[in-house]
Amino acid sequence: MREYERNIRKVEPYVPGEQPQNKVIKLNTNENPYPPSPKVAKALAEMDTDRLRLYPDPACTALTEALADFYHVNPDQVFVGVGSDDVLSMCFLTFFNSKKPIFFPDITYSFYKVWAELYRIPYECQKLDGDFRLVKEDYYKENGGVIFPNPNAPTAIYEELDAVEDIIRANQDVIVIVDEAYVDFAGRSAIELVGRYENLIVVQTFSKARSMAGMRIGYAIASPRLIRYLNDAKYSFNSYTMNQAALICGVEAVKDREYFEEGIHKIVMTREWAKGRFEKLGFRFLESNANFIFATHPEYDAGELFEALKENGIYVRYWGSERIEQYLRITIGTREEMETLFGFLEKYVGRRKTGQC
Amino acid sequence: MREYERNIRKVEPYVPGEQPQNKVIKLNTNENPYPPSPKVAKALAEMDTDRLRLYPDPACTALTEALADFYHVNPDQVFVGVGSDDVLSMCFLTFFNSKKPIFFPDITYSFYKVWAELYRIPYECQKLDGDFRLVKEDYYKENGGVIFPNPNAPTAIYEELDAVEDIIRANQDVIVIVDEAYVDFAGRSAIELVGRYENLIVVQTFSKARSMAGMRIGYAIASPRLIRYLNDAKYSFNSYTMNQAALICGVEAVKDREYFEEGIHKIVMTREWAKGRFEKLGFRFLESNANFIFATHPEYDAGELFEALKENGIYVRYWGSERIEQYLRITIGTREEMETLFGFLEKYVGRRKTGQC
Repeated sequence: MREYERNIRKVEPYVPGEQPQNKVIKLNTNENPYPPSPKVAKALAEMDTDRLRLYPDPACTALTEALADFYHVNPDQVFVGVGSDDVLSMCFLTFFNSKKPIFFPDITYSFYKVWAELYRIPYECQKLDGDFRLVKEDYYKENGGVIFPNPNAPTAIYEELDAVEDIIRANQDVIVIVDEAYVDFAGRSAIELVGRYENLIVVQTFSKARSMAGMRIGYAIASPRLIRYLNDAKYSFNSYTMNQAALICGVEAVKDREYFEEGIHKIVMTREWAKGRFEKLGFRFLESNANFIFATHPEYDAGELFEALKENGIYVRYWGSERIEQYLRITIGTREEMETLFGFLEKYVGRRKTGQC
Repeated sequence: MREYERNIRKVEPYVPGEQPQNKVIKLNTNENPYPPSPKVAKALAEMDTDRLRLYPDPACTALTEALADFYHVNPDQVFVGVGSDDVLSMCFLTFFNSKKPIFFPDITYSFYKVWAELYRIPYECQKLDGDFRLVKEDYYKENGGVIFPNPNAPTAIYEELDAVEDIIRANQDVIVIVDEAYVDFAGRSAIELVGRYENLIVVQTFSKARSMAGMRIGYAIASPRLIRYLNDAKYSFNSYTMNQAALICGVEAVKDREYFEEGIHKIVMTREWAKGRFEKLGFRFLESNANFIFATHPEYDAGELFEALKENGIYVRYWGSERIEQYLRITIGTREEMETLFGFLEKYVGRRKTGQC
């Protein structure tokens, strides 16, 4: 073994949700089944590619202004990054430098732990209750910062804004990050609290309701003071992160509010209909307010069902880890995709019930 | 002061080269004065924007294959990132975890120091000699890793591959990164050494010779073993960094070898012609092998000249820092842009010479 091997960072290999290239029904990474606004396509087609020779605007001015306009905040309250992963990672790096542990739920987005370890931030997981709900009182203890998704992933459970506000109010000496990747499918966003709590950061993404996972855009909305700190950190490490195509397409997507709202409506309608179908098949699931359902079946093993679905060209997400080993996370696709899913599930459940295999 | 203020990361505010929005002659950030290959524009216009709803390919397969093909290496020897800043930062994070200091030149790319501090990597700067040349023997001492640009920035000096190989050979127990952002304007790349030295990483960018600073694409070429470590680190922290537009445009730019070579030829011709003009005006400069010239004038203060140029709509780069306080870094623009620059400089130098002010 060469000397340098000893000094290579040890990481836990992360396996992203599969991105199959062939024709499958892809309900495994919570993507939007509908394309982005037609205005995005138009903007790309009309883009002045000669300008690509120049560095992009490091302040992402046009996009922060469009987002500020959409959310009725000031442009100096908006920070954008390469997907919400980049934004969240930058928040960890900038704000979580206390010796006290940061708090997040035990069942939640897996990258919180990764970034905490990367930046050597002490952390302590707070256990969700038996129904996978956040226990807000757990977050009242002394800590170095708080982060949780709302709706939570992979549970899909949305906590009402009152509970979120209680946590923020109880933690005014630290930074509280509310990670709202799925909030557009759920209810009120904590963005409305930003004016009242200087310690609050709300993070959202273009990858879900805005149908642009392929463009890698995320953003944070917070007090101008916190946004300034985020920008200071970003400029000091890597100034030019958002490419010109993302900036241009991002602006167009934000401006098309009608398309955005219609898309959400379609997915929510499909989700509510799908809930009935899942129930009829004997599945149990947590109350979903996201674009996915976290479901279990009392009679069928989740791991086996996951494999059976995959063999039949239907990809869903399965972790098999503690407390959630009998759950599958199933993205809400188009009505047609869901019909195919239920067609398969009916046979799977029926076949077993009648003892045919 | 709120408690959380104490736990915010302290950073040295970095000021990127200005990106003026109005019509100026922009010779301050070493961008390419020519647009990218017309094939890039075509690819963007024809892009299937419906696919933007999906996450991009985390392995960046099409782009790593195109680069592998271009450089006659295997696809498993290529890693891509959001500009070479992202690639370099990922290399620091992955490979520089020794307790011994990493080495880099005292006058060099300013981000090396920033990443070392960010990741708490001990470092030691090795002083360039009086002519701003690398002293290769300085890098033979025990260290935790080595990084230097070739050509160096902002000096524009290219070290011949023999000297580069001497440094790599003397450091086979650590990782040696050769940062070749400007090598296409200079000479042989260290990529040809990758097959022989498993500890070597060569980093290049699409921002200079490939005219795509606005698309944020950089890459590393190394042994399959080192590329695997880089990918492990990347997947564990942020799997989807390259957006679909960057991946598609990157492939097209790489495939158009003829356009790439013509563009380099034009810039090198302008540079060589410009050297004569600078000389005639009494400037002294280091032997430039990049797309910029690092120049000083024995009779005129660099800071004053910088301001005078700016007032006249010509942006160049000036740091005013130790050892280089009398130098300006001037990007090679189009022939027309350079004519305007020299027109101004002739007046500036002449006016002073004849004592008219």
